[in-house]
Amino acid sequence: MSVSTGDSVFDWIDTRAEARAKAGLTRRLRPRPATSTDLDLASNDYLGLARDKRVTGAAAAAAMRWGAGSTGSRLVTGSTELHTELEYELANFCGAQSALVFSSGFAANLGALTALSGPGTAIVADQYIHASLIDGCRLSKADVVVAGHTDVPQVKNALATRGKRRALVVTDSVFSVDGDLAPLTELAAVCREHDSALVVDDAHGLGVLGDGGRGAVHAAGLAKSPDVVTTITLSKSLGAQGGAVLGPSRVIRHLVETARSFIFDTGLAPGSVAAALTALKVLREEPDRPGRALAAAVELSERLRAAGFRASTPTAAVVSVQAPSPESAFAWAEACRTSGVVVGCFRPPSVPDGISRLRLTARADLSEADIDRAVRVITETGASAGAVSRPR
Amino acid sequence: MSVSTGDSVFDWIDTRAEARAKAGLTRRLRPRPATSTDLDLASNDYLGLARDKRVTGAAAAAAMRWGAGSTGSRLVTGSTELHTELEYELANFCGAQSALVFSSGFAANLGALTALSGPGTAIVADQYIHASLIDGCRLSKADVVVAGHTDVPQVKNALATRGKRRALVVTDSVFSVDGDLAPLTELAAVCREHDSALVVDDAHGLGVLGDGGRGAVHAAGLAKSPDVVTTITLSKSLGAQGGAVLGPSRVIRHLVETARSFIFDTGLAPGSVAAALTALKVLREEPDRPGRALAAAVELSERLRAAGFRASTPTAAVVSVQAPSPESAFAWAEACRTSGVVVGCFRPPSVPDGISRLRLTARADLSEADIDRAVRVITETGASAGAVSRPR
Ligand SMILES: Cc1ncc(COP(=O)(O)O)c(C=O)c1O
Ligand SMILES: Cc1ncc(COP(=O)(O)O)c(C=O)c1O
Repeated sequence: MSVSTGDSVFDWIDTRAEARAKAGLTRRLRPRPATSTDLDLASNDYLGLARDKRVTGAAAAAAMRWGAGSTGSRLVTGSTELHTELEYELANFCGAQSALVFSSGFAANLGALTALSGPGTAIVADQYIHASLIDGCRLSKADVVVAGHTDVPQVKNALATRGKRRALVVTDSVFSVDGDLAPLTELAAVCREHDSALVVDDAHGLGVLGDGGRGAVHAAGLAKSPDVVTTITLSKSLGAQGGAVLGPSRVIRHLVETARSFIFDTGLAPGSVAAALTALKVLREEPDRPGRALAAAVELSERLRAAGFRASTPTAAVVSVQAPSPESAFAWAEACRTSGVVVGCFRPPSVPDGISRLRLTARADLSEADIDRAVRVITETGASAGAVSRPR
Repeated sequence: MSVSTGDSVFDWIDTRAEARAKAGLTRRLRPRPATSTDLDLASNDYLGLARDKRVTGAAAAAAMRWGAGSTGSRLVTGSTELHTELEYELANFCGAQSALVFSSGFAANLGALTALSGPGTAIVADQYIHASLIDGCRLSKADVVVAGHTDVPQVKNALATRGKRRALVVTDSVFSVDGDLAPLTELAAVCREHDSALVVDDAHGLGVLGDGGRGAVHAAGLAKSPDVVTTITLSKSLGAQGGAVLGPSRVIRHLVETARSFIFDTGLAPGSVAAALTALKVLREEPDRPGRALAAAVELSERLRAAGFRASTPTAAVVSVQAPSPESAFAWAEACRTSGVVVGCFRPPSVPDGISRLRLTARADLSEADIDRAVRVITETGASAGAVSRPR
């Protein structure tokens, strides 16, 4: 046998990279500096709290007082009294019975879906749920049925004809790509009728929708339902990092004891815990922030549609604008960035329907001048990207 | 149809909880205060850096300067120049070509295994790999073969008889429960012989093993191998939060473009990034820290074995001490805690072989008096837990 050098083991990676390059789907990291005059329409910092001095100050103080890391699994040394306080405040704010903090929203979704299902369970999932929920379904060992996007009759039918006793219906509240809403009230009713639980990922609802930003589940009156479980992230409206599951106390206790992404993961860093706690406090003190984020999104969308673009009608802080191809979406986003406006660019495989888009996020702290600037730059650059569809 | 209240949907959870309670396997969170006179032998803060003022100060300063959160996916707004600096320093320190930072070690493992495998791949995994690697295998869509613990001939046989062209061998470097070592040199040779890649989780090796704490992969001379990929966590020796994958640059680029737990997850918070960066700096300046952690582990283990306990022989900073049952392990750990010594208690399902244990972790900053205190308390409480096995 000839002696191998191991150099060819990953040659397949180069082949894949070439295929992506050909399809215009290469992605590259764009590290940003600490300060910039660019206008940010790409982050999920909907309330502008990630840089709020109260929030960053709390993160700093907690790192000094509690340590830079939590030092262990939440079940060993990784639970501090600060974690408990955040769990209490999250549950209280959102109107749930209990809450459990994970190291990310991704981990919260994996934990909720795997711990609440299993081989004896059917999962009925909206076809556009977030990747972390999809991975949760894949890990769940449940029978997974994919229902059409926001298609309640299909969900109902899947529940009625399921071959398993237990069932979970899984959906985002606000879908991350287009910012459209799930029919939570209808889904909850169908679940109730069919003895099933509803799991809602409120990542993009918390801080934006509902009374004072209490989220879409609260807005639908479902926060205290005995058969509804909500997952959230601390990394968007709350400007921090981490995730949480909210729901009936017995569900939360069950997650503590069985969720692998909770048990076998280091607890969230104290600085992130404190940042989220303080963001919640700010949200209570300034309940108009969610409305300002929403209003900015509506204005952005209306003005872009008036300019002839296929912009989504925002029900939360996300506005998507369709582009004719992955390449043109990329070129458009690049042109915006060159003109000082940073926008998201979603291309396959990050878009469930294959349509490439700019993804714009509004923030509570966008000024009228910011919106003017955004609309001007997106419009100017959009023409050359071929994205305008004049009134048909 | 009678109107349901939804109250019974999660009744199955109570049944499970009762079964766990009967088996002595109930787990509860024990939130800790910011300061305590307890002796910590349970955290993974092997080098004592989580509370180091240089590390916490850097975390605090970064939160103020860069924000409490990274505000988005690493591919959108979540990459800062600080992330890039950490990736450079991690690769440099560990001797790898490139590195990529994830929001946790758990996420790094999911990302590495899923992005590097797929339906055309066979994965051969040690039976005692960490839960996050197991979940990575489950998500991978690969053919997964479980090999006996550190059983190189079995790995070799599985590679030789695999039905897939590509293959990954997956192992922890230091197994998290007992702290024993994987035969990395032998595994790498077998992989090389069979055109396969080796993925090593060096979570418990980094900062403890190898020249100046460069980890087990570096110690085995494999850090620059074109067919070896290493995953690490920032949450143990580095005292922070987060994880990373180290390896050939093309592998890292591939992860940027395809790892779902990287793409669909918010970037690591700047405070955690800065903490890990500073911990690396401290490690460079104080290269004796790893040796001190190791020496403390060896002393703990020797003295406990001399006292008649079944303590593992440490090759890293972890010492496990077997207990006769889950109940006695729990009672023993509780008794230690009451006496001011916090130890880990690993019971099913967190122990791969079903044997319950105390899990003690040594730290570089343990004093001789700390070790005396630990041995005294563990010995006194262990007698009543029935854990002493007098020389046979
Ligand atoms: C709908 C949705 N759920 C979950 C997540 C994951 O949350 P995190 O970034 O905190 O891991 C995201 C985005 O990252 C999301 O958009
Ligand atoms: C071997 C091993 N790998 C991975 C992890 C996960 O790392 P993290 O806690 O940073 O998610 C852990 C512990 O948590 C571990 O012990």
